[in-house]
Amino acid sequence: MSPASDPAQIEAVRLRMVELGFHVDLARSGDRPILCGSGIDELQSYDHLRQLRGWSSVDDVVFSQPSTKFLGKSPQTIDLGGGVVVGGSAIVIFAGPCTVESETQLFETAEAVSRSGASVLRGGAYKPSTSPYSFRGMGLPGLELLAQAGKRFGLKVITEVMDPRKVDLVAKYADILQIGARNMQNYDLLHEVGKISKPVLLKRGLSARYEEWLMAAEHIALAGNERIILCERGVRSFETGTRNMLDLAAVPVMKALAQLPVIVDPSQGTGKRELVTPMSLAAIAAGADGLIVEVHANPDQAVKDGAQSLSPDQFESLVPQVQAVARAVGRSVLVPTKV
Amino acid sequence: MSPASDPAQIEAVRLRMVELGFHVDLARSGDRPILCGSGIDELQSYDHLRQLRGWSSVDDVVFSQPSTKFLGKSPQTIDLGGGVVVGGSAIVIFAGPCTVESETQLFETAEAVSRSGASVLRGGAYKPSTSPYSFRGMGLPGLELLAQAGKRFGLKVITEVMDPRKVDLVAKYADILQIGARNMQNYDLLHEVGKISKPVLLKRGLSARYEEWLMAAEHIALAGNERIILCERGVRSFETGTRNMLDLAAVPVMKALAQLPVIVDPSQGTGKRELVTPMSLAAIAAGADGLIVEVHANPDQAVKDGAQSLSPDQFESLVPQVQAVARAVGRSVLVPTKV
Amino acid sequence: MSPASDPAQIEAVRLRMVELGFHVDLARSGDRPILCGSGIDELQSYDHLRQLRGWSSVDDVVFSQPSTKFLGKSPQTIDLGGGVVVGGSAIVIFAGPCTVESETQLFETAEAVSRSGASVLRGGAYKPSTSPYSFRGMGLPGLELLAQAGKRFGLKVITEVMDPRKVDLVAKYADILQIGARNMQNYDLLHEVGKISKPVLLKRGLSARYEEWLMAAEHIALAGNERIILCERGVRSFETGTRNMLDLAAVPVMKALAQLPVIVDPSQGTGKRELVTPMSLAAIAAGADGLIVEVHANPDQAVKDGAQSLSPDQFESLVPQVQAVARAVGRSVLVPTKV
Amino acid sequence: MSPASDPAQIEAVRLRMVELGFHVDLARSGDRPILCGSGIDELQSYDHLRQLRGWSSVDDVVFSQPSTKFLGKSPQTIDLGGGVVVGGSAIVIFAGPCTVESETQLFETAEAVSRSGASVLRGGAYKPSTSPYSFRGMGLPGLELLAQAGKRFGLKVITEVMDPRKVDLVAKYADILQIGARNMQNYDLLHEVGKISKPVLLKRGLSARYEEWLMAAEHIALAGNERIILCERGVRSFETGTRNMLDLAAVPVMKALAQLPVIVDPSQGTGKRELVTPMSLAAIAAGADGLIVEVHANPDQAVKDGAQSLSPDQFESLVPQVQAVARAVGRSVLVPTKV
Repeated sequence: MSPASDPAQIEAVRLRMVELGFHVDLARSGDRPILCGSGIDELQSYDHLRQLRGWSSVDDVVFSQPSTKFLGKSPQTIDLGGGVVVGGSAIVIFAGPCTVESETQLFETAEAVSRSGASVLRGGAYKPSTSPYSFRGMGLPGLELLAQAGKRFGLKVITEVMDPRKVDLVAKYADILQIGARNMQNYDLLHEVGKISKPVLLKRGLSARYEEWLMAAEHIALAGNERIILCERGVRSFETGTRNMLDLAAVPVMKALAQLPVIVDPSQGTGKRELVTPMSLAAIAAGADGLIVEVHANPDQAVKDGAQSLSPDQFESLVPQVQAVARAVGRSVLVPTKV
Repeated sequence: MSPASDPAQIEAVRLRMVELGFHVDLARSGDRPILCGSGIDELQSYDHLRQLRGWSSVDDVVFSQPSTKFLGKSPQTIDLGGGVVVGGSAIVIFAGPCTVESETQLFETAEAVSRSGASVLRGGAYKPSTSPYSFRGMGLPGLELLAQAGKRFGLKVITEVMDPRKVDLVAKYADILQIGARNMQNYDLLHEVGKISKPVLLKRGLSARYEEWLMAAEHIALAGNERIILCERGVRSFETGTRNMLDLAAVPVMKALAQLPVIVDPSQGTGKRELVTPMSLAAIAAGADGLIVEVHANPDQAVKDGAQSLSPDQFESLVPQVQAVARAVGRSVLVPTKV
Repeated sequence: MSPASDPAQIEAVRLRMVELGFHVDLARSGDRPILCGSGIDELQSYDHLRQLRGWSSVDDVVFSQPSTKFLGKSPQTIDLGGGVVVGGSAIVIFAGPCTVESETQLFETAEAVSRSGASVLRGGAYKPSTSPYSFRGMGLPGLELLAQAGKRFGLKVITEVMDPRKVDLVAKYADILQIGARNMQNYDLLHEVGKISKPVLLKRGLSARYEEWLMAAEHIALAGNERIILCERGVRSFETGTRNMLDLAAVPVMKALAQLPVIVDPSQGTGKRELVTPMSLAAIAAGADGLIVEVHANPDQAVKDGAQSLSPDQFESLVPQVQAVARAVGRSVLVPTKV
Repeated sequence: MSPASDPAQIEAVRLRMVELGFHVDLARSGDRPILCGSGIDELQSYDHLRQLRGWSSVDDVVFSQPSTKFLGKSPQTIDLGGGVVVGGSAIVIFAGPCTVESETQLFETAEAVSRSGASVLRGGAYKPSTSPYSFRGMGLPGLELLAQAGKRFGLKVITEVMDPRKVDLVAKYADILQIGARNMQNYDLLHEVGKISKPVLLKRGLSARYEEWLMAAEHIALAGNERIILCERGVRSFETGTRNMLDLAAVPVMKALAQLPVIVDPSQGTGKRELVTPMSLAAIAAGADGLIVEVHANPDQAVKDGAQSLSPDQFESLVPQVQAVARAVGRSVLVPTKV
């Protein structure tokens, strides 16, 4: 409470806390009264407690319990089937084009990344685009191509869903549903992917704090789906020399906080092809459980984000470097068992 | 292009531009070759041009046309009917609680703000909440209460829509649909509100650049709805002393760029009741076309955001101060004509 | 303390606090032990208390006293002599070129701003420049010209000092010494200007939080000089559409926190001439005690920052607008009494 | 130029460029005229060219040459003597306490880090402190202790200099002079360290862009000293879960841009002891040439920054992990040859 609080103000806050069910202790720090509540679950009274912040005599309300009921309790691994487990000792590599453009483009890329060591194929069928005059993705035919390519080349498939009305449709074709950075706090979408049985990759919002990212994941978990993978993909900053600022400290922080697997997107996280390799290696050294890398059969012809896409050759030379760093930190890269 | 480009690389880029339909001039700046295209609409080739950024010989692609087809051409005003026009010479005041909590709370607040000079009633029926354990709004009954309160006290009604599936429902009850900061780049939602005939208030995203905000508005316009009001509500920053950093330069910048009305949210923009008045006055002085202010009949009991809500008395004393500054910049505050 | 702390860990921290001289209360919030110290001046044990943050059982150390001994106690006004008082009811306008370039340039500009209503002449003799190939100022001859121009046109003079070895020299010529944003935490420089008898204008650092800015001012005060004016000049952000993000909420926040006059720099704060007028008016409406505006007799020929400089005509038309807004908030613009 | 420019405006800009010595080409991009100058060194006319940005008909001035004359031309290594070379294939580890507190503290720490694999001893004798009530360092006795400890344990010594008047003094005792983040744009200090013959470690400013950091280094180089090591130490961001945001992409970016060695400070860069190891490994994987790590003989008793200091045991277990990752990326950790 404010140091200037009078006894009546202190008593009013105390009574309100008692009314909410708390046992209340009064202490003093310097000349500041502190009311400490205990005895009940704070999350039950979340809004009511925060409400006290608006009282003129109250300087701050600090919660002392974790802000989650589902996440952060015990380490989770996400088993995608077929031996692909995210969050175990093996690093899982997700790779593929930014956007599905055509069968040829997708299949060529999928074949290449499969051969080089990827276990999961990425590719956008529905694309968020800053400009409405930019390509928005192939939609359903893109989903079908992804599923076919995954099957053909023994890859699990991940693709983004943006619209809560399309969650069931996307879940039919994809092994993992991706929530993009722009939608990290699109709660209706989070609740919808919380109702399905497929795992969800939750990208960090453009300027999301760790706690907010955790809470977004908890929204999904509370809706019923705890199979969540987190993805650090760079945040917005003042720096104009890279597209985003890749915050690798997020990897150990979020693993500890959420006890979920955390992978890293070095393509989106830097926006520059020549930074993908060093940032991939750094991510693994920081403890990431996987990478999601943009690869295009012909980056110069990529409809989107060509500047941050690797060619198949560049990807092929990345993987053994990732393996070397993985071994240095006591891990390995998952070797997909192709049927 | 890169200064190191050889003639073959320059020719390859030139040919690609010719293929896209451009007339191409080659110039030199220092030792850097520059290829300048003209003759066709750049937006037609938006992705194809950006694609060139991925070519190793190309350092940057700069667009020289405006990035919009609909917005930014001529100044728009938004007529809400009943004499309430946003973007004209009169400042329009939007006020009301963060969240609709009950009939009593809403009606008391609506009566108070109506009496003091508000023309539009705000109030959330569907609330985005960082924590899933926080109140998510009353939903449909909240919408009904808003519509009733608006009718009773002669106020237009604005409320947030988060789910594309609820756009039609919300549009039945509200005079203006609000897109919140977290959903500024939720494109499926933007397209949905682009199909209705009601005006849309588009809040700036937490870390949206001016150009991205403009483009989000253009998404709505391209989908069919040019009746858009922009709202600066503070952006995320390193400063921890306020909830958000209110960027008032956005007011003149966005008015010039989008030619749309721009209003300011000093409540969300600061998170502190005592900053609402100075920031309201500053917003008007900067050229804002309106204010959207959180007012609660009893801020200490507010379920959400009480710390940034004004009491009816505080709001009543704000309005004449706004009027004084409005007059100083050659404007006035809209006086609602109550039936 | 951490909820997992055992009794021995709690006792260890308690004993350390007792050793530092505190009376200690133990309370509980949820399952978290809280040790509350009182009875002595926390600032005496500042480092020792912060040290506890490194103990594994300690989650956080929160100070409950203000962090200053000098500032924030009672409102200060800065009397520059000759009727120029900053922080009183009258708004004081500082104006002049970014950089002193020549006698002609400075005198023409000084005459113009004096005629139009400025009370203080600004101009850089020592210029911080990102590029070493940029002009670094005229140095001593620039100081002499400033002092002469001030005398001739009845203006007080402000100029930047960057080097602690030049503080005495600059203090000979200037009425106010400016500490630029890049040097807000150059503590040796702060201590040096703390030893002189001239007032100091302390610009906010590029990414300084309110508390850090206050503490920088306290460094000066502790060194002996409490005659400090604060200047909000925009902070670094992700936005690329303006040079800096002008944080006008800083005005009421810092006035309350430091009890010092706060002025605003709309030129540096936006980097764009066309934003200087709206942001000047907004600053006054937010409660600023003054403005510092870049004006150049011929902006197109300005060696530095021409894009954000007003012409004399533009400045002349700004002042009456500032007066109108000042009146609207119960203040006036200081009218300099020219001898 | 602006698309709205008329022929007279274009001609005026062209003539100004010719006057500055350029050969000028006129091209068109869309409906935008572009004037491209060549034939002379742009840096000679740096301010004059930037000046054109203030002309109403000019939208932007883009430089096409590198912004440096000294740096970025060829890769530099910094030889500290005694076999310690920064920027070669071997990783160099800098370690030691945040602040020199006493002979015992420093010598115990120095012995420990020397034994475990550090080649350079760090320790502050002059400390920048946000609060004036915090310890500011031992000063000269601290320098003497550092030099003695370095000698005794076969370590090179690095310490911070903040005051241009103390550069010669500090250079007498230290092998490398450190410019701290707060002083990255303290140009008088940069020029002073540019005049000495000892190498300089230039930490990145709290919110410095890559280009600004490069230019700060160029200030030192232009003053005469090209023996510069860069240090990424985290930047200011919106994230409150870590003290700073460690931007590891800065490592490959700055190595390419400046061709100088780049080391990383994982202690300051995160503020949390438990993040020092993962971020150290990530830094090496990203290509860093060294680490600077805070180690304290007894972190719980550290006067400053104990929460981010490793104990000698923790440091000892860090080094082999760094070695493993270094080997994985084809490098090694420098093994100091103790006399």
